[in-house]
Amino acid sequence: MQKLAIGIDIGGTSVKYGVVSESGEVKLKESFPTKDYEKVHDFVDYLSERIAHSLDGLNSEHELTGVGIGAPNGNFYRGTIEHAPNLKWKGIIPLADLLNKKINIPVYLTNDANAAAIGEMTYGGAKNMKNFIMITLGTGLGSGFVANGQLILGHDGFAGEFGHTTVFHDGRECGCGKKGCLETYVSATGLKRTVIKLLSKAKTDSILRDYSYNNITSEQIYKAAMNGDQLAIDAFNFTGKILGMKLADAVTIVSPEAIFLFGGLANAGKLIFEPTKKYMEEYNFPIYKDKVKLFSSLLPENDAAILGAAALVWNENSRTIVDKQLH
Amino acid sequence: MQKLAIGIDIGGTSVKYGVVSESGEVKLKESFPTKDYEKVHDFVDYLSERIAHSLDGLNSEHELTGVGIGAPNGNFYRGTIEHAPNLKWKGIIPLADLLNKKINIPVYLTNDANAAAIGEMTYGGAKNMKNFIMITLGTGLGSGFVANGQLILGHDGFAGEFGHTTVFHDGRECGCGKKGCLETYVSATGLKRTVIKLLSKAKTDSILRDYSYNNITSEQIYKAAMNGDQLAIDAFNFTGKILGMKLADAVTIVSPEAIFLFGGLANAGKLIFEPTKKYMEEYNFPIYKDKVKLFSSLLPENDAAILGAAALVWNENSRTIVDKQLH
Repeated sequence: MQKLAIGIDIGGTSVKYGVVSESGEVKLKESFPTKDYEKVHDFVDYLSERIAHSLDGLNSEHELTGVGIGAPNGNFYRGTIEHAPNLKWKGIIPLADLLNKKINIPVYLTNDANAAAIGEMTYGGAKNMKNFIMITLGTGLGSGFVANGQLILGHDGFAGEFGHTTVFHDGRECGCGKKGCLETYVSATGLKRTVIKLLSKAKTDSILRDYSYNNITSEQIYKAAMNGDQLAIDAFNFTGKILGMKLADAVTIVSPEAIFLFGGLANAGKLIFEPTKKYMEEYNFPIYKDKVKLFSSLLPENDAAILGAAALVWNENSRTIVDKQLH
Repeated sequence: MQKLAIGIDIGGTSVKYGVVSESGEVKLKESFPTKDYEKVHDFVDYLSERIAHSLDGLNSEHELTGVGIGAPNGNFYRGTIEHAPNLKWKGIIPLADLLNKKINIPVYLTNDANAAAIGEMTYGGAKNMKNFIMITLGTGLGSGFVANGQLILGHDGFAGEFGHTTVFHDGRECGCGKKGCLETYVSATGLKRTVIKLLSKAKTDSILRDYSYNNITSEQIYKAAMNGDQLAIDAFNFTGKILGMKLADAVTIVSPEAIFLFGGLANAGKLIFEPTKKYMEEYNFPIYKDKVKLFSSLLPENDAAILGAAALVWNENSRTIVDKQLH
């Protein structure tokens, strides 16, 4: 009997859905637009259809153990999505309960970056690690912290919002309403904002002077930097400097074995890793210097979201996560 | 049979020693100067004499369960004091092993602020809390983080150095060799440095203009503030602002139920708590606003160090701490 889990990643644009074995084999995957489902009940109906269909496709040698969901503003303790700014479903959505009532299989839900951390621990580079940090770099900056072999969920289940630590007290406006948050500097959007800032500040010639704010992408900045465009390189250096400095702060709290970077910006390789490492070491308290590894995530990018969500199921079953409880 | 633990707190100036019951009753306590013991072996000899003496004093209804030690740069995994700048014993001192070999009773050792966190959880205001932060404000700023009911020790046993996160990137020189560390602003010394800075920057009249740098104490600043000295009040406000901002950063990582302040500065009451709370809320990511309690430690100040160290023994015995292991 092979045990399987369903992993579901809910993003602002699309939902990724897959059936995953305990060893990390993705047996089946598909994706569909999030915005097709105005009401969460329609979404739950569709999901339960897909799950029934997946079950039909399994032979008797397979058993579905549970469903894991990664979602923005996901709360593990309550199985809810709470006030997610990028989703149509407003307020507090008890998605795990709604789905569980339909399909009668255990459903676990947490925020997407926390799911990525569990995925890294289950299928990626953090196997056997008990203390590490996961940083996901997309349009924003997500994070998951693992200490003593357990995901830090916090008192209310919302721990791991490192993207909203403050870098500059009167800095860039953030979508959260605050100013100077880390993700306004370190993310695909942050990199773009830095390029625009440098275009105004420096006189360096750059191919990026031909693009409007709305037309610049992090891929274009990456290509420009790889072609030797100094302004693009400077933008990556600034981004890595800010990230390195703030990681040194995080290191003082959890003293991790390693920090994993995942997502678009992490794919820029040396352009982002070198300044991040350099400044993390420069700002590290002496007792931590040269001890903390900085790695690229080992999760395959296309399947990472599904694997992370599915890993919630194995993690819960192996009880390495804190006992599920309402405080 | 009543179980007892010995708690030992090693400071730069004095060693506090006490015998504590499981319920937190201090049966016996004494202190002696740290500097009397040039060599750690002399210190271990003296400690084992004191412990033998304490045991002689116990009647047959008492049983000594273990010895807990809080020390600067203490490492729980290894039971060592490593490169403590304020102690005469240089390098890596395997104090737990040295003492254990002499007395044949379990010996646990960690850094002083981590011991304070365990003390707060065992005897103080954090009973039944699974997620909280302990901040100790003395000449420096120490910290202990508890998540999922366990002290965060980190990969190498040195987690919890929040005093060395960076506030200003080119800020005040810190004893650790870095610049702009939190404890150069938020500590008894930090408060004094802020007063001196304000004396140079502002033209406000103040009684503190009559004191030299070396003669100003945090007690004098407190008294001046209580007497309405605006410059002293401004110094407290600035200190609380910096602490509040950085606590908001820490909240994003661990999402605590409460934060406890302990030590000299914490005794300044509203002078420090009001600005700290105000700015913590101002900088909190919206999801955490008005959720995190800010408390004064409930440990009795005179016995806190002994209670915290002794609590290591009960904590280890009840297995609420991570399994002791070398990574």
